[in-house]
Amino acid sequence: MIHLESDYNNGAHPDVLQRLVATNDERTQSYGDDHFSEHACELIRAACEAPDAQIWFLAGGTQTNAAIIDCVLQPYEGVLCADTAHINVHEAGAVEFTGHKVIALPSCEGKLETAALQEWLAAFFADDTAAHMVRPGMVYLTFPTELGTLYTANELHAIRAVCSDYGLRLYVDGARLAYGLAASADVTLPLLARVADVFYIGGTKCGALCGEAVVFPKSDAPAHMLSRIKQHGALLAKSRVVGVQFEVLFAANGNAPLYLTLGHHAVALAMRLRRLFVEQLGYQPYIDSPTNQQFYVIPNTDLENLRQHIGFEVWCPVDKHHTTCRFVTSWAVTDEEIDDLEHVL
Amino acid sequence: MIHLESDYNNGAHPDVLQRLVATNDERTQSYGDDHFSEHACELIRAACEAPDAQIWFLAGGTQTNAAIIDCVLQPYEGVLCADTAHINVHEAGAVEFTGHKVIALPSCEGKLETAALQEWLAAFFADDTAAHMVRPGMVYLTFPTELGTLYTANELHAIRAVCSDYGLRLYVDGARLAYGLAASADVTLPLLARVADVFYIGGTKCGALCGEAVVFPKSDAPAHMLSRIKQHGALLAKSRVVGVQFEVLFAANGNAPLYLTLGHHAVALAMRLRRLFVEQLGYQPYIDSPTNQQFYVIPNTDLENLRQHIGFEVWCPVDKHHTTCRFVTSWAVTDEEIDDLEHVL
Amino acid sequence: MIHLESDYNNGAHPDVLQRLVATNDERTQSYGDDHFSEHACELIRAACEAPDAQIWFLAGGTQTNAAIIDCVLQPYEGVLCADTAHINVHEAGAVEFTGHKVIALPSCEGKLETAALQEWLAAFFADDTAAHMVRPGMVYLTFPTELGTLYTANELHAIRAVCSDYGLRLYVDGARLAYGLAASADVTLPLLARVADVFYIGGTKCGALCGEAVVFPKSDAPAHMLSRIKQHGALLAKSRVVGVQFEVLFAANGNAPLYLTLGHHAVALAMRLRRLFVEQLGYQPYIDSPTNQQFYVIPNTDLENLRQHIGFEVWCPVDKHHTTCRFVTSWAVTDEEIDDLEHVL
Amino acid sequence: MIHLESDYNNGAHPDVLQRLVATNDERTQSYGDDHFSEHACELIRAACEAPDAQIWFLAGGTQTNAAIIDCVLQPYEGVLCADTAHINVHEAGAVEFTGHKVIALPSCEGKLETAALQEWLAAFFADDTAAHMVRPGMVYLTFPTELGTLYTANELHAIRAVCSDYGLRLYVDGARLAYGLAASADVTLPLLARVADVFYIGGTKCGALCGEAVVFPKSDAPAHMLSRIKQHGALLAKSRVVGVQFEVLFAANGNAPLYLTLGHHAVALAMRLRRLFVEQLGYQPYIDSPTNQQFYVIPNTDLENLRQHIGFEVWCPVDKHHTTCRFVTSWAVTDEEIDDLEHVL
Repeated sequence: MIHLESDYNNGAHPDVLQRLVATNDERTQSYGDDHFSEHACELIRAACEAPDAQIWFLAGGTQTNAAIIDCVLQPYEGVLCADTAHINVHEAGAVEFTGHKVIALPSCEGKLETAALQEWLAAFFADDTAAHMVRPGMVYLTFPTELGTLYTANELHAIRAVCSDYGLRLYVDGARLAYGLAASADVTLPLLARVADVFYIGGTKCGALCGEAVVFPKSDAPAHMLSRIKQHGALLAKSRVVGVQFEVLFAANGNAPLYLTLGHHAVALAMRLRRLFVEQLGYQPYIDSPTNQQFYVIPNTDLENLRQHIGFEVWCPVDKHHTTCRFVTSWAVTDEEIDDLEHVL
Repeated sequence: MIHLESDYNNGAHPDVLQRLVATNDERTQSYGDDHFSEHACELIRAACEAPDAQIWFLAGGTQTNAAIIDCVLQPYEGVLCADTAHINVHEAGAVEFTGHKVIALPSCEGKLETAALQEWLAAFFADDTAAHMVRPGMVYLTFPTELGTLYTANELHAIRAVCSDYGLRLYVDGARLAYGLAASADVTLPLLARVADVFYIGGTKCGALCGEAVVFPKSDAPAHMLSRIKQHGALLAKSRVVGVQFEVLFAANGNAPLYLTLGHHAVALAMRLRRLFVEQLGYQPYIDSPTNQQFYVIPNTDLENLRQHIGFEVWCPVDKHHTTCRFVTSWAVTDEEIDDLEHVL
Repeated sequence: MIHLESDYNNGAHPDVLQRLVATNDERTQSYGDDHFSEHACELIRAACEAPDAQIWFLAGGTQTNAAIIDCVLQPYEGVLCADTAHINVHEAGAVEFTGHKVIALPSCEGKLETAALQEWLAAFFADDTAAHMVRPGMVYLTFPTELGTLYTANELHAIRAVCSDYGLRLYVDGARLAYGLAASADVTLPLLARVADVFYIGGTKCGALCGEAVVFPKSDAPAHMLSRIKQHGALLAKSRVVGVQFEVLFAANGNAPLYLTLGHHAVALAMRLRRLFVEQLGYQPYIDSPTNQQFYVIPNTDLENLRQHIGFEVWCPVDKHHTTCRFVTSWAVTDEEIDDLEHVL
Repeated sequence: MIHLESDYNNGAHPDVLQRLVATNDERTQSYGDDHFSEHACELIRAACEAPDAQIWFLAGGTQTNAAIIDCVLQPYEGVLCADTAHINVHEAGAVEFTGHKVIALPSCEGKLETAALQEWLAAFFADDTAAHMVRPGMVYLTFPTELGTLYTANELHAIRAVCSDYGLRLYVDGARLAYGLAASADVTLPLLARVADVFYIGGTKCGALCGEAVVFPKSDAPAHMLSRIKQHGALLAKSRVVGVQFEVLFAANGNAPLYLTLGHHAVALAMRLRRLFVEQLGYQPYIDSPTNQQFYVIPNTDLENLRQHIGFEVWCPVDKHHTTCRFVTSWAVTDEEIDDLEHVL
């Protein structure tokens, strides 16, 4: 039985755990003011080629999105996103809870399209009644998207240009960033740091027990971030717990950081899974995802057998005879598990 | 050098860490729906003698206070507390951020006094203009208080009775509950479960890496708590991380749960510290605290020397020649460290 | 020059003003507790055939929507509406400001379609991840809609049935209710009072200086409404000012209340305008609106001449040669003004 | 029977009403963009000697306080005020509803004391844990206070200086400003405009049907105020209704504006009332109020007889035999009514 329900159904990468054990007895300051967190920040700055980046460690993704979006937006501004975006669909209204409208635009394969964005903004700023509408203040992207797809570097540059034209900030939700970076031909951490005003490097789904690293690469975070993070209930007293983990994930030991290595591993397994499903089993991809989330249209008659061997998530019905299902690899899935799958299916 | 700055300057109790390591590879459901969390809930229900208690695991204290207070209160209600209460002073306005007024009453040694509470409520409900005021919906207590003091069982019963008379719910913030239970003559988890409508068992300061357990002992939590916790950004995807830790802290192995043992250890060290400070060094307690937070009035001329040997926090100036300082023991401080202190001071 | 820019570009109906003058010197209680307001409530209850209706008088439409939606919804619930709905487009995010998501569904001619609503709700409640989404708690309709269109009685009954099936409340925004009732073949105040859980009777656009009357026809308003309205900054100290006005608008003097008479007047003028535009000038309606808001596709070459004689609002561009414009009649527009228009155009 | 329960138990000054009647038929733009509002703004700027002042007209006091405080504060800031302040006691938590903490300081006779304010701020900014506390962003004063008392010009200058020292903005709630200006020896509109960053000129209690004028004398209002006022549900579509009224109240006809004349009238009557109560009836003032709100300690045995002749409000019990009562004059009370009172008491 292989568990592909999600990339948060396990603990942490062994190196991360081991470092938590090794550092356990040391006493440090709290609220981010410890040498583990400081070192992790240095490593992330280096990986992003953003030497002045401001970095905060938070506990989870929804919390990070709600806190960062609220801190960066003015109180009267809203956030633009794809209609499939996590903040629009699956965060229980956490952004609206802080008073901001989520302005959802039609999307294509999980991606916000530059042209649609540009058109919406042009119409908004040409509208005589704009003062009675929610003013857009930010564009929110996920990388990879909720459907596993990726923006190319060119697409990110184009969206960045639109944001700049209209005075919007660009925020990238990197809950699964490791997998996106591993699968992308041209998007890297330094590129993200150049195009985004703020983004987060997801830990929870990419090797950590818990924790996300918020990066303001241009060092232009709003004032009093520590107080505001606390006001959102998102300040960790013992934030070293996340700091230690990111220290391991971004350790510069001559090779690629562990964070990227884990991403490559999961993506390689996802490609093996794709070959198995498409070439061996003849399933049709629901969407062409190059990352660790894979979606296939499964004949309903096959579901029972699949469930004997794989844990997965039903995504949506297709028609009377087919169902789209999601299969998620992660750093924790092994080659052997995919081997086994190839044998039994 | 002994570190007594806080009880969150370390990692986790070794047993907790070890269990995280041992369970690391197992794949589970997320969002609380895993057998570790379920088992931890069973253990906590047993320890509280509250077989129907509803329990949620959250990441940190301020988050827990803001989310639970907001969920339990009606939107037009406020929360009554001591003016020294953590939610009134040191949570960056997280409760007000959710729209609720914190109604602070004068306190005595960190404690809300039953008579003052009763008097305030009687005046409120007799006031012809009450409909123009914030309606009180909850009493918030900390156990132990921010000054290390404790309510007796009788005091808790009396406050409970006032709450019941006026239709208020009683919430107890147990960020340092282990130390309060260890030091109290008559307050136990089952008693708390009887008097409180909701309380939380603090993990972050009491042996865990992170995490708090919210308990509704009467099983009358508001509807849709999972959604609401997520709306507050407080839902952990990988909540097993906290579940596993509470499983260890409340393991029923014939003896007292580790949680209480850790509390007793820290309180015993605090009492050794008190003897050292009062009897050996002649310092005056700032307040008579029976728990792991100790406050002493230190001659300013001694501060420099103390700092050579102890990490501690300056609490407040007393007069030109004296300063009140806080010294905090925890499960992680050792007898040997106190031995050393006795020798060098 | 005739002013058809909006139905809020004037003062009040003369009868309303005269009554404000006549009652000016009387001293009354405040916050709704005056005999003018009480009498107005009685008149509205009678007009709605809802003898137990609870009624509050507020100052303006956006305020009313934000306050009522927030009071009726649970804090974790969102409100469903047409994507063209006022709360979704033109209220500057006032609903989101209170923490609730506005869930916009595709609409047809300004109307939420029963089938789309039913389908969305069925999908929501069938979704395994619903607990991570914003739970729908209310359907919001405008009557007439922002495009001047009307729901039929059958459509309202059908939407009501869907709401009941899924446990949602139905709220009707009647900012221009007088004009909707005048133009509808089968929707009356008593019918509205039967199908809606709460609705408001707009005064500002329908003959009053200012003010809206919120009606809970089933007398099941949330507790502590006065406090909550005040919490929203929407409680009028001198609420008699609105009460007096609604007393005049709903005076039962053997005939139809003035409120309905004003509606009929404006709708009759709108129909004259339609004949003028369609039959005499050959303009094409943008939408088939039976109420006081009329939308026409105007050749751009005619705009300049029209502007000499009519004040109106540009709605949206159609193509390079045509523009949709909005022309709004009201109780204050006179037959003579339309006569003049027929002569000069 | 004379009604002294409040200064909002009547309609509007006859000149105000008459002007509403006279201007009723004119069609104007909405949302503040009409010549009545513009003219009223000009008159207020002249009266304040603040030629660049930005001015908005809102409907009521609580709404104005909540909207302005929220707009001026950063989201993480709180507002300092006297513990007796209206926003702290009698606005149903409208400020907290927008997410801001109301930080109440001990007061003296309804007034915030400069020394207490200075001391609190010095302690806050010296506190090592300040980042975990709500940062003060504004001082809120009422002029006159809720107890009818007044700050002197020197006191206002001193508080202004403290605000400037610590980077706080100063906001003055002038719900009853007409009566304060009439009674003060040295506080004038131009002085207010110099010391305050923002204040409002109350209309509802001072001669208008409804409406308050918010003044940013230094023309440094936050960006997008119209949108933000609408977001708070406080934007009047037909804002000319308030504009017309302030045009009358501040008409420059060679004499003092009507607004000040009304204030002087009410204060003169309040002083007659004081003489009657103190010298003729021997009652003791509860507080030395020079304005239109008068508070006296009344023997309980006299209450019944007083109630035959005067409508008033019970303020608070004093002891078993005495009750403090409030008697409020206004522009609407007449000399003849006080004459009558002198005869019957």
